[in-house]
Amino acid sequence: MEISELGEFGLIDRLTKGLQTVNSSTIKSVGDDCAILRNHETDILVTTDLLLEGVHFDLTYVPLKHLGYKSAIVNFSDVYAMNGRPKQITVSLGISKRFTVEHIEELFAGIRLACEIYGVDLVGGDTTSSRQGLVISITCIGEAPADKVVRRSGAKDTDLICVSGDLGAAYMGLQLLEREKTASAGQRDFVPQFQGKEYLVERQLKPEARRDIIEELDKAGIVPTAMMDISDGLSSELLHICKQSDAGCRIYEDRIPIDYQTAIMAEEIGMNLITAALNGGEDYELLFTVPLHCHEKIEKLPGVKLIGHITKPSLGCAMITRDGTEIPLRAQGWNPLAKPEKEG
Amino acid sequence: MEISELGEFGLIDRLTKGLQTVNSSTIKSVGDDCAILRNHETDILVTTDLLLEGVHFDLTYVPLKHLGYKSAIVNFSDVYAMNGRPKQITVSLGISKRFTVEHIEELFAGIRLACEIYGVDLVGGDTTSSRQGLVISITCIGEAPADKVVRRSGAKDTDLICVSGDLGAAYMGLQLLEREKTASAGQRDFVPQFQGKEYLVERQLKPEARRDIIEELDKAGIVPTAMMDISDGLSSELLHICKQSDAGCRIYEDRIPIDYQTAIMAEEIGMNLITAALNGGEDYELLFTVPLHCHEKIEKLPGVKLIGHITKPSLGCAMITRDGTEIPLRAQGWNPLAKPEKEG
Repeated sequence: MEISELGEFGLIDRLTKGLQTVNSSTIKSVGDDCAILRNHETDILVTTDLLLEGVHFDLTYVPLKHLGYKSAIVNFSDVYAMNGRPKQITVSLGISKRFTVEHIEELFAGIRLACEIYGVDLVGGDTTSSRQGLVISITCIGEAPADKVVRRSGAKDTDLICVSGDLGAAYMGLQLLEREKTASAGQRDFVPQFQGKEYLVERQLKPEARRDIIEELDKAGIVPTAMMDISDGLSSELLHICKQSDAGCRIYEDRIPIDYQTAIMAEEIGMNLITAALNGGEDYELLFTVPLHCHEKIEKLPGVKLIGHITKPSLGCAMITRDGTEIPLRAQGWNPLAKPEKEG
Repeated sequence: MEISELGEFGLIDRLTKGLQTVNSSTIKSVGDDCAILRNHETDILVTTDLLLEGVHFDLTYVPLKHLGYKSAIVNFSDVYAMNGRPKQITVSLGISKRFTVEHIEELFAGIRLACEIYGVDLVGGDTTSSRQGLVISITCIGEAPADKVVRRSGAKDTDLICVSGDLGAAYMGLQLLEREKTASAGQRDFVPQFQGKEYLVERQLKPEARRDIIEELDKAGIVPTAMMDISDGLSSELLHICKQSDAGCRIYEDRIPIDYQTAIMAEEIGMNLITAALNGGEDYELLFTVPLHCHEKIEKLPGVKLIGHITKPSLGCAMITRDGTEIPLRAQGWNPLAKPEKEG
């Protein structure tokens, strides 16, 4: 169905049909000039992400439902990275004319699924036509008790540096998808080769936010001193924490968590594995620091790896390689403005 | 300066230099995964707008500073339309490569000026490259005491219908700007003819949000029963209020406030003046309903015009013309999805 048949309000009605809210702070959702929230106890966290077709996603190999899911997840991840819980999102869409109502329903199904799984209410947005490609802008509002909010700036000398999950897989998933896209060019019955690399594809197309880690830390009675989610690569994020905390750091190459599928793919495409893990980006794992006395508690947390420690600022930021060499950390993460795409 | 020389973080540093916050609810602004807000007394209002080059604005005649100012204002207007006060915004930008650092600074200067004048803190955002044109996504967070929040759904039979300012001028400003753009085609030293129509141009390029009306209503002790801002045209907005309030309405043609410049321009381009005033859009005036007993108080409010009254739903929504004819109101306002632009 053509979107113009429904018009803006018809489309919004259709996309938000049956939408129910689950959070007590959501007083009024879609349908007025503003959504109304009420929260008299915790701090409020606000984060926003803008995703543009051709820059952040390629619909040749990204299914719209996965794209919707991921668009929501990347915002939830920012709220967890403050030790908060995501509660509401607004979704703005710019839609070019090659998209049908069914396409946008697919996209929305992914967004709504993410909201359902993570207990988040969709409370508003904006819908308009776009002259080129799909534009997705999501803002997420989260909550956290004021004394539990974790910023980037609180890391202290001797704190332990921890990371959840494993790194570099989403980046390798992107390389794999791009490779198969190139291989498929002009072939009608092309079947992409993902066998044995399903994890990489999933990490790229359908990442999860680490709510589980935030809940485990809470149960263990640990409030990190600093925290970020890893969207631009471990190196880049760790440099942010050190800069904002006025600190240095040492991490150890042999402690960086890497999945075997990531290692195999790096081997196949002749890429340095540690470079991929340090700079790959889009992992949406949590990077955080805890006081030294949390050492035993952290060692017991499933899915968390201790990779190094914070130092005095004068020591700078470096990785110790397997042979004991110190290599300065550099931010080589994805820079969305460094290489502007050709204007279409 | 090329934006790629600065990169994302360099650009953000530059745009947010010297940024100070003025609201006590703003705990932590730009620079972490989320902004942190704290508000233990009032309700929280959230609204968002997505503006795309070629759909919502034409940089041939819209100066970037004005565009920034207007982008912020349209969000503030939504918060005032709930009887709230805007307090924070996040700004996401998609920037194509024809924009320099200086261009984006101009745009941001307009956003920051609007924030300064309206007492709003800029607390976050996202910045990325765009493959074509400029993308602006702004989310605004406002506050209002829970018992003062005004929705669209509260209009009651016999309530008075009021509107601030005058209508149709922004639409006529757009017609004027488009006419001069067409006239200028191919001419090197073209001077656009705006004499005697400065008000129309200003209404289109640099609208204001009606904080003054919200403050006057508050001083007069009036809480409207329903309210919206007029962004898509009076007809369309009034139909929203009546639908959500399960009500009908009668408005009077001779009560619709129209500036003389709007009337002259309508005459010049051979357009029905009332059609322009009812459906023009982008006025950002306030449309609201008050109980009948507020009649005298409303009559005394500067800048507010009483244009009709709410009826039982069975009577439908209509305008009474100067000769006493009843014409059903229809939503002919700007529909951003009805006619998708050609894909670029």
